[in-house]
Amino acid sequence: MVRQRYRLDFGYEGTAFSGSQRQPGLRTVQGVLEEALARLAGEPVRVALAGRTDAGVHAVGQVASFDLCWRHDEATLARALQAWLPEDVVVYRVARMPAGFHARRGAVDREYRYRIWQGEQPPLFLRRFVWRFAGLLDLRAMQEAAQFFLGSHDFRSFAGHGLGGPKATTPRVRTITMAEWHLLSPVVEPVGTGAQIVEFRVRANGFLPQMVRTMVSALVRVGTGAAEPSWISELLERCDRRAAPPPAPPGGLVLWRVRYPEDIALATPASRADEESRG
Amino acid sequence: MVRQRYRLDFGYEGTAFSGSQRQPGLRTVQGVLEEALARLAGEPVRVALAGRTDAGVHAVGQVASFDLCWRHDEATLARALQAWLPEDVVVYRVARMPAGFHARRGAVDREYRYRIWQGEQPPLFLRRFVWRFAGLLDLRAMQEAAQFFLGSHDFRSFAGHGLGGPKATTPRVRTITMAEWHLLSPVVEPVGTGAQIVEFRVRANGFLPQMVRTMVSALVRVGTGAAEPSWISELLERCDRRAAPPPAPPGGLVLWRVRYPEDIALATPASRADEESRG
Repeated sequence: MVRQRYRLDFGYEGTAFSGSQRQPGLRTVQGVLEEALARLAGEPVRVALAGRTDAGVHAVGQVASFDLCWRHDEATLARALQAWLPEDVVVYRVARMPAGFHARRGAVDREYRYRIWQGEQPPLFLRRFVWRFAGLLDLRAMQEAAQFFLGSHDFRSFAGHGLGGPKATTPRVRTITMAEWHLLSPVVEPVGTGAQIVEFRVRANGFLPQMVRTMVSALVRVGTGAAEPSWISELLERCDRRAAPPPAPPGGLVLWRVRYPEDIALATPASRADEESRG
Repeated sequence: MVRQRYRLDFGYEGTAFSGSQRQPGLRTVQGVLEEALARLAGEPVRVALAGRTDAGVHAVGQVASFDLCWRHDEATLARALQAWLPEDVVVYRVARMPAGFHARRGAVDREYRYRIWQGEQPPLFLRRFVWRFAGLLDLRAMQEAAQFFLGSHDFRSFAGHGLGGPKATTPRVRTITMAEWHLLSPVVEPVGTGAQIVEFRVRANGFLPQMVRTMVSALVRVGTGAAEPSWISELLERCDRRAAPPPAPPGGLVLWRVRYPEDIALATPASRADEESRG
Protein backbone atom coordinates (compact mmCIF):
# COMPACT_ATOMS: atom_id res chain seq x y z
CA MET A 1 0.00 0.00 0.00
CA VAL A 2 1.60 3.12 -1.28
CA ARG A 3 1.14 6.77 -0.31
CA GLN A 4 -0.56 8.59 -3.16
CA ARG A 5 -1.57 12.19 -3.97
CA TYR A 6 -5.34 12.71 -4.35
CA ARG A 7 -7.60 15.46 -5.67
CA LEU A 8 -11.01 15.84 -4.03
CA ASP A 9 -13.74 17.92 -5.67
CA PHE A 10 -16.35 18.83 -3.08
CA GLY A 11 -18.91 21.34 -1.87
CA TYR A 12 -20.32 22.65 1.38
CA GLU A 13 -22.96 24.87 2.85
CA GLY A 14 -20.95 27.51 4.69
CA THR A 15 -23.65 28.49 7.21
CA ALA A 16 -22.39 26.34 10.10
CA PHE A 17 -18.66 26.69 9.38
CA SER A 18 -16.23 29.28 10.76
CA GLY A 19 -14.71 29.49 7.29
CA SER A 20 -12.60 27.04 5.33
CA GLN A 21 -9.21 27.30 7.08
CA ARG A 22 -8.47 25.21 10.16
CA GLN A 23 -8.71 27.14 13.45
CA PRO A 24 -8.30 25.57 16.89
CA GLY A 25 -11.61 24.98 18.66
CA LEU A 26 -13.77 26.08 15.72
CA ARG A 27 -15.76 24.04 13.20
CA THR A 28 -14.06 24.63 9.86
CA VAL A 29 -14.19 22.94 6.46
CA GLN A 30 -10.52 21.97 6.60
CA GLY A 31 -11.04 20.69 10.14
CA VAL A 32 -13.93 18.32 9.35
CA LEU A 33 -12.24 17.14 6.14
CA GLU A 34 -8.93 16.38 7.87
CA GLU A 35 -10.81 14.63 10.67
CA ALA A 36 -12.70 12.39 8.20
CA LEU A 37 -9.47 11.58 6.33
CA ALA A 38 -7.65 10.79 9.58
CA ARG A 39 -10.35 8.27 10.46
CA LEU A 40 -9.92 6.57 7.09
CA ALA A 41 -6.14 6.68 7.17
CA GLY A 42 -5.56 5.93 10.85
CA GLU A 43 -3.04 8.78 10.91
CA PRO A 44 -3.15 12.58 10.63
CA VAL A 45 -3.74 13.91 7.11
CA ARG A 46 -3.12 17.50 6.04
CA VAL A 47 -5.06 18.97 3.12
CA ALA A 48 -4.49 21.99 0.88
CA LEU A 49 -7.61 23.85 -0.28
CA ALA A 50 -7.86 25.65 -3.63
CA GLY A 51 -9.85 28.60 -2.31
CA ARG A 52 -10.16 30.20 1.10
CA THR A 53 -13.76 30.95 2.03
CA ASP A 54 -14.96 33.05 4.98
CA ALA A 55 -17.55 32.00 7.57
CA GLY A 56 -20.95 31.65 5.89
CA VAL A 57 -19.56 31.43 2.34
CA HIS A 58 -20.57 28.32 0.37
CA ALA A 59 -18.79 26.19 -2.23
CA VAL A 60 -19.81 23.78 -4.96
CA GLY A 61 -16.43 23.82 -6.68
CA GLN A 62 -13.90 23.56 -3.85
CA VAL A 63 -10.83 21.36 -4.49
CA ALA A 64 -8.54 19.74 -1.92
CA SER A 65 -5.25 17.90 -2.40
CA PHE A 66 -3.73 15.47 0.11
CA ASP A 67 -1.60 12.33 0.42
CA LEU A 68 -3.19 9.09 1.57
CA CYS A 69 -2.45 5.40 1.88
CA TRP A 70 -5.59 3.73 0.54
CA ARG A 71 -5.89 0.17 -0.74
CA HIS A 72 -9.22 0.49 -2.64
CA ASP A 73 -10.25 2.49 -5.69
CA GLU A 74 -11.20 6.18 -5.90
CA ALA A 75 -14.97 5.58 -6.01
CA THR A 76 -14.74 3.59 -2.77
CA LEU A 77 -12.69 6.36 -1.19
CA ALA A 78 -15.31 8.91 -2.26
CA ARG A 79 -18.08 6.86 -0.62
CA ALA A 80 -16.08 6.21 2.54
CA LEU A 81 -15.21 9.89 2.85
CA GLN A 82 -18.84 10.95 2.34
CA ALA A 83 -19.86 8.50 5.07
CA TRP A 84 -17.52 10.21 7.58
CA LEU A 85 -18.35 13.77 6.54
CA PRO A 86 -21.30 15.76 7.96
CA GLU A 87 -24.37 16.40 5.79
CA ASP A 88 -23.37 19.99 4.97
CA VAL A 89 -20.35 18.69 3.00
CA VAL A 90 -20.76 16.70 -0.22
CA VAL A 91 -18.14 14.74 -2.11
CA TYR A 92 -18.36 15.09 -5.89
CA ARG A 93 -15.26 13.22 -7.07
CA VAL A 94 -11.96 11.74 -5.93
CA ALA A 95 -9.06 11.26 -8.36
CA ARG A 96 -5.47 10.01 -8.07
CA MET A 97 -3.01 12.67 -9.18
CA PRO A 98 0.72 13.02 -9.88
CA ALA A 99 2.70 13.83 -6.71
CA GLY A 100 3.24 17.40 -7.92
CA PHE A 101 -0.47 18.32 -7.89
CA HIS A 102 -1.35 21.04 -5.37
CA ALA A 103 -4.94 22.30 -5.07
CA ARG A 104 -4.02 25.91 -4.30
CA ARG A 105 -0.71 26.47 -6.08
CA GLY A 106 -1.75 24.52 -9.20
CA ALA A 107 -5.01 26.37 -9.83
CA VAL A 108 -5.22 28.50 -12.98
CA ASP A 109 -8.28 30.47 -11.97
CA ARG A 110 -11.29 30.56 -9.67
CA GLU A 111 -14.90 31.49 -10.33
CA TYR A 112 -17.23 32.87 -7.67
CA ARG A 113 -20.93 33.62 -7.93
CA TYR A 114 -22.85 36.02 -5.72
CA ARG A 115 -26.67 35.99 -5.53
CA ILE A 116 -28.86 38.95 -4.61
CA TRP A 117 -32.51 38.21 -3.90
CA GLN A 118 -34.63 40.95 -5.50
CA GLY A 119 -37.90 39.25 -4.59
CA GLU A 120 -41.14 40.90 -3.67
CA GLN A 121 -41.51 38.05 -1.15
CA PRO A 122 -38.75 37.20 1.34
CA PRO A 123 -36.62 34.14 0.54
CA LEU A 124 -37.43 30.91 2.39
CA PHE A 125 -35.70 27.81 1.02
CA LEU A 126 -32.86 29.95 -0.35
CA ARG A 127 -32.54 32.27 2.65
CA ARG A 128 -29.04 31.01 3.53
CA PHE A 129 -27.83 31.36 -0.07
CA VAL A 130 -28.81 34.89 -1.04
CA TRP A 131 -28.48 38.47 0.10
CA ARG A 132 -31.92 40.00 0.25
CA PHE A 133 -31.66 43.53 -1.06
CA ALA A 134 -34.98 45.38 -0.91
CA GLY A 135 -34.13 48.45 -3.04
CA LEU A 136 -34.29 48.69 -6.83
CA LEU A 137 -31.10 47.90 -8.73
CA ASP A 138 -30.18 49.22 -12.16
CA LEU A 139 -28.69 46.08 -13.67
CA ARG A 140 -27.50 47.90 -16.79
CA ALA A 141 -25.43 50.31 -14.69
CA MET A 142 -24.06 47.41 -12.64
CA GLN A 143 -23.12 45.57 -15.84
CA GLU A 144 -21.34 48.68 -17.13
CA ALA A 145 -19.55 49.17 -13.80
CA ALA A 146 -18.43 45.52 -13.70
CA GLN A 147 -16.43 46.05 -16.90
CA PHE A 148 -14.01 48.31 -15.02
CA PHE A 149 -12.84 45.27 -13.06
CA LEU A 150 -11.70 43.39 -16.18
CA GLY A 151 -7.95 43.06 -16.68
CA SER A 152 -5.12 43.39 -14.16
CA HIS A 153 -5.51 45.81 -11.27
CA ASP A 154 -4.19 46.40 -7.79
CA PHE A 155 -7.14 45.32 -5.64
CA ARG A 156 -6.07 46.77 -2.28
CA SER A 157 -9.23 48.90 -2.14
CA PHE A 158 -11.25 45.68 -2.16
CA ALA A 159 -9.17 43.60 0.25
CA GLY A 160 -10.14 42.78 3.84
CA HIS A 161 -8.15 41.21 6.68
CA GLY A 162 -5.65 44.09 6.78
CA LEU A 163 -4.39 43.58 3.22
CA GLY A 164 -5.98 46.82 2.09
CA GLY A 165 -5.71 49.08 5.13
CA PRO A 166 -3.75 52.35 5.29
CA LYS A 167 -0.55 50.46 6.18
CA ALA A 168 -0.89 48.09 3.22
CA THR A 169 1.85 49.24 0.89
CA THR A 170 2.40 45.96 -0.99
CA PRO A 171 0.64 45.97 -4.39
CA ARG A 172 -2.03 43.24 -4.68
CA VAL A 173 -2.49 42.72 -8.40
CA ARG A 174 -5.10 40.25 -9.62
CA THR A 175 -6.32 39.60 -13.16
CA ILE A 176 -10.07 39.46 -13.72
CA THR A 177 -11.14 37.52 -16.83
CA MET A 178 -14.93 37.55 -16.28
CA ALA A 179 -17.20 40.00 -14.43
CA GLU A 180 -20.84 39.87 -15.44
CA TRP A 181 -24.38 39.98 -14.09
CA HIS A 182 -27.05 37.39 -14.88
CA LEU A 183 -30.74 37.08 -14.09
CA LEU A 184 -31.80 33.83 -12.46
CA SER A 185 -35.29 32.48 -12.04
CA PRO A 186 -34.95 30.39 -8.89
CA VAL A 187 -37.81 27.94 -9.69
CA VAL A 188 -37.63 26.27 -6.27
CA GLU A 189 -39.75 28.95 -4.59
CA PRO A 190 -41.80 31.91 -5.83
CA VAL A 191 -40.19 35.35 -5.85
CA GLY A 192 -43.36 37.35 -6.49
CA THR A 193 -44.39 39.37 -9.53
CA GLY A 194 -41.51 40.80 -11.56
CA ALA A 195 -38.91 39.74 -8.99
CA GLN A 196 -35.83 37.58 -9.47
CA ILE A 197 -32.33 36.74 -8.33
CA VAL A 198 -29.45 38.74 -9.81
CA GLU A 199 -26.16 36.90 -9.89
CA PHE A 200 -22.64 38.27 -10.23
CA ARG A 201 -20.16 35.89 -11.87
CA VAL A 202 -16.50 36.72 -11.53
CA ARG A 203 -13.40 34.80 -12.53
CA ALA A 204 -9.78 35.68 -11.75
CA ASN A 205 -6.39 34.07 -11.32
CA GLY A 206 -6.84 34.68 -7.60
CA PHE A 207 -8.82 36.69 -5.06
CA LEU A 208 -7.90 38.62 -1.93
CA PRO A 209 -9.86 38.16 1.33
CA GLN A 210 -13.41 39.61 1.07
CA MET A 211 -12.62 40.80 -2.46
CA VAL A 212 -15.69 39.43 -4.25
CA ARG A 213 -18.06 40.61 -1.51
CA THR A 214 -16.53 44.11 -1.58
CA MET A 215 -16.76 44.21 -5.39
CA VAL A 216 -20.45 43.25 -5.08
CA SER A 217 -21.19 45.93 -2.48
CA ALA A 218 -19.50 48.57 -4.64
CA LEU A 219 -21.48 47.43 -7.71
CA VAL A 220 -24.72 47.48 -5.71
CA ARG A 221 -23.95 51.06 -4.75
CA VAL A 222 -23.77 51.84 -8.46
CA GLY A 223 -26.99 49.85 -8.96
CA THR A 224 -28.87 52.05 -6.48
CA GLY A 225 -27.73 55.18 -8.32
CA ALA A 226 -25.56 56.40 -5.41
CA ALA A 227 -22.46 56.23 -7.64
CA GLU A 228 -21.62 56.29 -11.34
CA PRO A 229 -20.19 53.17 -13.03
CA SER A 230 -16.84 54.92 -13.46
CA TRP A 231 -16.57 55.19 -9.65
CA ILE A 232 -15.28 51.57 -9.77
CA SER A 233 -12.29 52.80 -11.73
CA GLU A 234 -11.61 55.50 -9.11
CA LEU A 235 -11.84 52.95 -6.29
CA LEU A 236 -9.25 50.75 -7.97
CA GLU A 237 -6.87 53.67 -8.41
CA ARG A 238 -7.16 54.74 -4.76
CA CYS A 239 -5.53 51.52 -3.46
CA ASP A 240 -7.12 52.16 -0.06
CA ARG A 241 -9.61 49.85 1.60
CA ARG A 242 -11.30 52.82 3.29
CA ALA A 243 -12.47 54.10 -0.11
CA ALA A 244 -14.77 51.13 -0.80
CA PRO A 245 -17.94 50.17 1.11
CA PRO A 246 -18.06 47.24 3.59
CA PRO A 247 -18.35 43.74 2.06
CA ALA A 248 -21.73 42.27 1.11
CA PRO A 249 -22.99 39.53 3.48
CA PRO A 250 -21.25 36.13 3.16
CA GLY A 251 -24.37 33.98 2.58
CA GLY A 252 -24.80 35.16 -1.03
CA LEU A 253 -21.36 33.95 -2.09
CA VAL A 254 -20.46 30.58 -3.64
CA LEU A 255 -17.06 29.34 -4.77
CA TRP A 256 -18.35 27.94 -8.04
CA ARG A 257 -15.35 26.44 -9.80
CA VAL A 258 -11.56 26.14 -9.68
CA ARG A 259 -9.73 25.25 -12.88
CA TYR A 260 -6.39 23.50 -13.38
CA PRO A 261 -4.26 23.26 -16.53
CA GLU A 262 -5.49 19.71 -17.15
CA ASP A 263 -9.19 20.75 -16.85
CA ILE A 264 -8.72 23.41 -19.50
CA ALA A 265 -6.57 21.25 -21.80
CA LEU A 266 -8.99 18.31 -21.58
CA ALA A 267 -12.08 20.37 -22.34
CA THR A 268 -13.50 19.47 -25.75
CA PRO A 269 -15.77 21.98 -27.52
CA ALA A 270 -18.79 19.93 -26.38
CA SER A 271 -17.77 19.82 -22.72
CA ARG A 272 -16.93 23.51 -22.80
CA ALA A 273 -20.45 24.24 -24.04
CA ASP A 274 -21.74 22.11 -21.20
CA GLU A 275 -19.59 23.99 -18.73
CA GLU A 276 -21.02 27.25 -19.91
CA SER A 277 -24.56 26.02 -19.27
CA ARG A 278 -23.57 24.35 -16.00
CA GLY A 279 -25.21 27.06 -13.94
CA MET B 1 -60.42 48.01 19.07
CA VAL B 2 -62.56 45.42 17.40
CA ARG B 3 -62.03 41.71 16.88
CA GLN B 4 -61.48 41.05 13.18
CA ARG B 5 -61.03 37.99 10.95
CA TYR B 6 -57.60 37.85 9.20
CA ARG B 7 -56.07 35.83 6.38
CA LEU B 8 -52.34 35.11 6.59
CA ASP B 9 -50.42 33.86 3.54
CA PHE B 10 -47.16 32.29 4.68
CA GLY B 11 -44.49 29.66 4.06
CA TYR B 12 -42.18 27.42 6.04
CA GLU B 13 -39.34 25.00 5.71
CA GLY B 14 -40.80 21.78 7.12
CA THR B 15 -37.48 20.17 8.14
CA ALA B 16 -37.59 21.15 11.81
CA PHE B 17 -41.38 20.85 12.28
CA SER B 18 -43.36 17.82 13.43
CA GLY B 19 -45.94 18.70 10.80
CA SER B 20 -48.44 21.53 10.57
CA GLN B 21 -51.08 20.50 13.14
CA ARG B 22 -50.65 21.40 16.79
CA GLN B 23 -49.47 18.50 18.98
CA PRO B 24 -48.64 18.80 22.68
CA GLY B 25 -44.89 18.95 23.36
CA LEU B 26 -43.89 19.02 19.69
CA ARG B 27 -42.70 21.89 17.50
CA THR B 28 -45.44 22.37 14.92
CA VAL B 29 -46.33 25.10 12.42
CA GLN B 30 -49.68 25.76 14.06
CA GLY B 31 -47.96 25.81 17.47
CA VAL B 32 -45.35 28.47 16.61
CA LEU B 33 -47.93 30.55 14.73
CA GLU B 34 -50.43 30.50 17.60
CA GLU B 35 -47.65 31.30 20.03
CA ALA B 36 -46.54 34.35 17.98
CA LEU B 37 -50.14 35.55 17.67
CA ALA B 38 -50.76 35.09 21.38
CA ARG B 39 -47.77 37.33 22.14
CA LEU B 40 -49.16 40.03 19.88
CA ALA B 41 -52.73 39.69 21.14
CA GLY B 42 -52.01 39.14 24.83
CA GLU B 43 -54.55 36.29 24.77
CA PRO B 44 -54.76 32.82 23.21
CA VAL B 45 -55.44 32.78 19.45
CA ARG B 46 -56.58 29.72 17.50
CA VAL B 47 -55.79 29.44 13.79
CA ALA B 48 -57.25 27.31 11.00
CA LEU B 49 -54.79 26.13 8.32
CA ALA B 50 -55.75 25.57 4.68
CA GLY B 51 -53.64 22.46 4.20
CA ARG B 52 -52.32 19.84 6.57
CA THR B 53 -48.65 19.03 5.98
CA ASP B 54 -46.68 16.14 7.48
CA ALA B 55 -43.34 16.41 9.28
CA GLY B 56 -40.64 17.49 6.80
CA VAL B 57 -43.11 18.80 4.18
CA HIS B 58 -42.61 22.45 3.16
CA ALA B 59 -45.01 25.22 2.17
CA VAL B 60 -44.80 28.46 0.22
CA GLY B 61 -48.58 28.80 -0.19
CA GLN B 62 -50.02 27.96 3.21
CA VAL B 63 -52.99 30.06 4.39
CA ALA B 64 -54.22 30.59 7.95
CA SER B 65 -57.35 32.30 9.23
CA PHE B 66 -57.84 33.66 12.74
CA ASP B 67 -59.54 36.38 14.77
CA LEU B 68 -57.50 39.13 16.35
CA CYS B 69 -57.87 42.47 18.11
CA TRP B 70 -55.24 44.67 16.47
CA ARG B 71 -55.16 48.46 16.44
CA HIS B 72 -52.68 49.00 13.56
CA ASP B 73 -52.80 48.18 9.85
CA GLU B 74 -52.18 44.84 8.11
CA ALA B 75 -48.62 45.65 6.98
CA THR B 76 -47.67 46.43 10.58
CA LEU B 77 -49.26 43.17 11.72
CA ALA B 78 -47.28 41.27 9.05
CA ARG B 79 -44.01 42.82 10.28
CA ALA B 80 -44.82 42.25 13.96
CA LEU B 81 -45.76 38.64 13.28
CA GLN B 82 -42.56 38.02 11.29
CA ALA B 83 -40.55 39.46 14.18
CA TRP B 84 -42.04 36.88 16.60
CA LEU B 85 -41.81 33.92 14.20
CA PRO B 86 -38.69 31.74 13.83
CA GLU B 87 -36.55 32.06 10.69
CA ASP B 88 -37.98 28.89 9.09
CA VAL B 89 -41.38 30.60 8.79
CA VAL B 90 -41.94 33.59 6.48
CA VAL B 91 -44.91 35.91 6.32
CA TYR B 92 -45.96 36.85 2.79
CA ARG B 93 -49.17 38.82 3.38
CA VAL B 94 -51.81 39.66 5.97
CA ALA B 95 -55.30 40.76 4.94
CA ARG B 96 -58.52 41.63 6.79
CA MET B 97 -61.38 39.36 5.72
CA PRO B 98 -65.14 39.07 6.19
CA ALA B 99 -66.02 37.13 9.37
CA GLY B 100 -67.14 34.13 7.28
CA PHE B 101 -63.68 33.48 5.79
CA HIS B 102 -62.20 30.12 6.84
CA ALA B 103 -58.77 29.04 5.50
CA ARG B 104 -59.62 25.33 5.26
CA ARG B 105 -63.35 25.22 4.59
CA GLY B 106 -63.29 28.15 2.14
CA ALA B 107 -60.53 26.80 -0.11
CA VAL B 108 -61.49 25.88 -3.68
CA ASP B 109 -58.38 23.84 -4.45
CA ARG B 110 -54.79 23.17 -3.41
CA GLU B 111 -51.65 22.72 -5.49
CA TYR B 112 -48.66 20.68 -4.37
CA ARG B 113 -45.29 20.26 -6.07
CA TYR B 114 -42.90 17.38 -5.55
CA ARG B 115 -39.23 17.57 -6.62
CA ILE B 116 -37.05 14.60 -7.53
CA TRP B 117 -33.31 15.27 -7.86
CA GLN B 118 -32.01 13.35 -10.87
CA GLY B 119 -28.52 14.84 -10.56
CA GLU B 120 -25.26 13.14 -11.35
CA GLN B 121 -23.93 15.01 -8.30
CA PRO B 122 -25.66 14.83 -4.91
CA PRO B 123 -27.76 17.85 -3.89
CA LEU B 124 -26.20 20.31 -1.45
CA PHE B 125 -28.10 23.60 -1.06
CA LEU B 126 -31.34 21.87 -2.06
CA ARG B 127 -30.81 18.67 -0.09
CA ARG B 128 -33.74 19.33 2.26
CA PHE B 129 -36.08 20.15 -0.62
CA VAL B 130 -35.69 17.21 -2.99
CA TRP B 131 -35.85 13.44 -3.07
CA ARG B 132 -32.64 12.16 -4.61
CA PHE B 133 -33.52 9.25 -6.86
CA ALA B 134 -30.46 7.67 -8.44
CA GLY B 135 -32.14 5.43 -11.06
CA LEU B 136 -33.23 6.50 -14.53
CA LEU B 137 -36.83 7.69 -14.89
CA ASP B 138 -38.90 7.54 -18.07
CA LEU B 139 -40.60 10.91 -17.86
CA ARG B 140 -42.85 10.19 -20.83
CA ALA B 141 -44.26 7.09 -19.12
CA MET B 142 -44.71 9.06 -15.87
CA GLN B 143 -46.54 11.80 -17.78
CA GLU B 144 -48.82 9.21 -19.38
CA ALA B 145 -49.43 7.52 -16.01
CA ALA B 146 -50.25 10.85 -14.33
CA GLN B 147 -53.22 11.32 -16.68
CA PHE B 148 -55.03 8.43 -14.98
CA PHE B 149 -55.30 10.56 -11.85
CA LEU B 150 -57.30 13.32 -13.60
CA GLY B 151 -60.97 13.58 -12.71
CA SER B 152 -62.85 12.26 -9.67
CA HIS B 153 -61.67 9.02 -8.05
CA ASP B 154 -61.82 7.24 -4.73
CA PHE B 155 -58.27 7.70 -3.45
CA ARG B 156 -58.28 5.14 -0.61
CA SER B 157 -55.36 3.27 -2.24
CA PHE B 158 -53.26 6.44 -1.85
CA ALA B 159 -54.33 7.46 1.67
CA GLY B 160 -52.19 7.09 4.78
CA HIS B 161 -53.04 7.49 8.49
CA GLY B 162 -55.53 4.59 8.41
CA LEU B 163 -57.86 6.20 5.87
CA GLY B 164 -56.93 3.63 3.25
CA GLY B 165 -56.34 0.47 5.28
CA PRO B 166 -58.32 -2.77 4.96
CA LYS B 167 -60.95 -1.48 7.40
CA ALA B 168 -61.44 1.78 5.49
CA THR B 169 -64.85 1.29 3.92
CA THR B 170 -65.78 4.99 3.55
CA PRO B 171 -65.21 6.22 -0.03
CA ARG B 172 -62.64 9.04 -0.23
CA VAL B 173 -63.39 10.80 -3.50
CA ARG B 174 -61.19 13.69 -4.59
CA THR B 175 -61.16 15.55 -7.91
CA ILE B 176 -57.79 16.10 -9.60
CA THR B 177 -57.68 19.02 -12.03
CA MET B 178 -53.93 19.01 -12.80
CA ALA B 179 -51.32 16.23 -12.71
CA GLU B 180 -48.20 16.90 -14.77
CA TRP B 181 -44.43 16.55 -14.77
CA HIS B 182 -42.02 19.39 -15.48
CA LEU B 183 -38.27 19.64 -15.88
CA LEU B 184 -36.52 22.22 -13.70
CA SER B 185 -33.02 23.55 -14.02
CA PRO B 186 -32.21 24.41 -10.41
CA VAL B 187 -29.63 27.18 -11.24
CA VAL B 188 -28.57 27.59 -7.61
CA GLU B 189 -26.19 24.63 -7.72
CA PRO B 190 -24.83 22.39 -10.49
CA VAL B 191 -26.56 19.06 -11.13
CA GLY B 192 -23.90 17.56 -13.41
CA THR B 193 -24.04 16.72 -17.10
CA GLY B 194 -27.51 15.90 -18.42
CA ALA B 195 -29.04 15.90 -14.95
CA GLN B 196 -31.97 17.91 -13.64
CA ILE B 197 -34.86 18.12 -11.21
CA VAL B 198 -38.18 16.58 -12.24
CA GLU B 199 -41.20 18.14 -10.61
CA PHE B 200 -44.72 16.77 -10.21
CA ARG B 201 -47.45 19.41 -10.06
CA VAL B 202 -50.83 18.31 -8.83
CA ARG B 203 -53.98 20.26 -8.05
CA ALA B 204 -57.19 18.97 -6.48
CA ASN B 205 -60.16 20.14 -4.46
CA GLY B 206 -58.56 18.33 -1.52
CA PHE B 207 -55.97 15.73 -0.61
CA LEU B 208 -55.93 12.79 1.82
CA PRO B 209 -53.00 12.26 4.22
CA GLN B 210 -49.82 11.18 2.34
CA MET B 211 -51.78 11.20 -0.92
CA VAL B 212 -49.38 13.27 -3.05
CA ARG B 213 -46.32 11.37 -1.81
CA THR B 214 -48.00 8.02 -2.53
CA MET B 215 -49.03 9.22 -6.01
CA VAL B 216 -45.40 10.22 -6.62
CA SER B 217 -44.01 6.89 -5.46
CA ALA B 218 -46.46 5.02 -7.71
CA LEU B 219 -45.54 7.24 -10.68
CA VAL B 220 -41.83 6.70 -9.99
CA ARG B 221 -42.46 2.96 -10.09
CA VAL B 222 -43.89 3.48 -13.57
CA GLY B 223 -40.91 5.67 -14.40
CA THR B 224 -38.45 2.90 -13.57
CA GLY B 225 -40.30 0.49 -15.87
CA ALA B 226 -41.48 -1.73 -12.99
CA ALA B 227 -45.12 -1.02 -13.89
CA GLU B 228 -47.13 0.12 -16.90
CA PRO B 229 -48.83 3.55 -16.87
CA SER B 230 -52.24 1.84 -16.75
CA TRP B 231 -51.28 0.31 -13.39
CA ILE B 232 -52.31 3.67 -11.86
CA SER B 233 -55.85 3.00 -13.02
CA GLU B 234 -55.80 -0.45 -11.40
CA LEU B 235 -54.51 1.00 -8.13
CA LEU B 236 -57.36 3.50 -8.03
CA GLU B 237 -59.93 0.77 -8.62
CA ARG B 238 -58.55 -1.44 -5.86
CA CYS B 239 -59.45 1.06 -3.08
CA ASP B 240 -56.90 -0.60 -0.81
CA ARG B 241 -53.86 1.16 0.62
CA ARG B 242 -51.89 -2.10 0.57
CA ALA B 243 -51.95 -2.12 -3.25
CA ALA B 244 -49.83 1.05 -3.62
CA PRO B 245 -46.15 1.52 -2.65
CA PRO B 246 -45.05 3.44 0.49
CA PRO B 247 -45.07 7.25 0.22
CA ALA B 248 -42.09 9.14 -1.25
CA PRO B 249 -39.97 11.01 1.36
CA PRO B 250 -41.53 14.20 2.79
CA GLY B 251 -38.64 16.60 1.96
CA GLY B 252 -39.49 16.72 -1.76
CA LEU B 253 -43.01 18.02 -1.16
CA VAL B 254 -44.17 21.65 -1.10
CA LEU B 255 -47.67 23.00 -0.56
CA TRP B 256 -47.44 25.50 -3.41
CA ARG B 257 -50.76 27.32 -3.48
CA VAL B 258 -54.28 27.35 -2.04
CA ARG B 259 -56.99 29.15 -3.97
CA TYR B 260 -60.21 30.77 -2.74
CA PRO B 261 -63.25 31.93 -4.73
CA GLU B 262 -62.07 35.55 -4.50
CA ASP B 263 -58.55 34.67 -5.80
CA ILE B 264 -60.03 33.03 -8.87
CA ALA B 265 -62.69 35.71 -9.47
CA LEU B 266 -60.11 38.51 -9.12
CA ALA B 267 -57.58 36.92 -11.48
CA THR B 268 -57.29 38.92 -14.69
CA PRO B 269 -55.96 37.20 -17.84
CA ALA B 270 -52.58 38.89 -17.21
CA SER B 271 -52.29 37.77 -13.60
CA ARG B 272 -53.36 34.25 -14.58
CA ALA B 273 -50.52 34.14 -17.11
CA ASP B 274 -48.22 35.31 -14.36
CA GLU B 275 -49.52 32.60 -12.06
CA GLU B 276 -48.77 29.97 -14.65
CA SER B 277 -45.16 31.10 -14.90
CA ARG B 278 -44.87 31.62 -11.16
CA GLY B 279 -42.77 28.48 -10.71
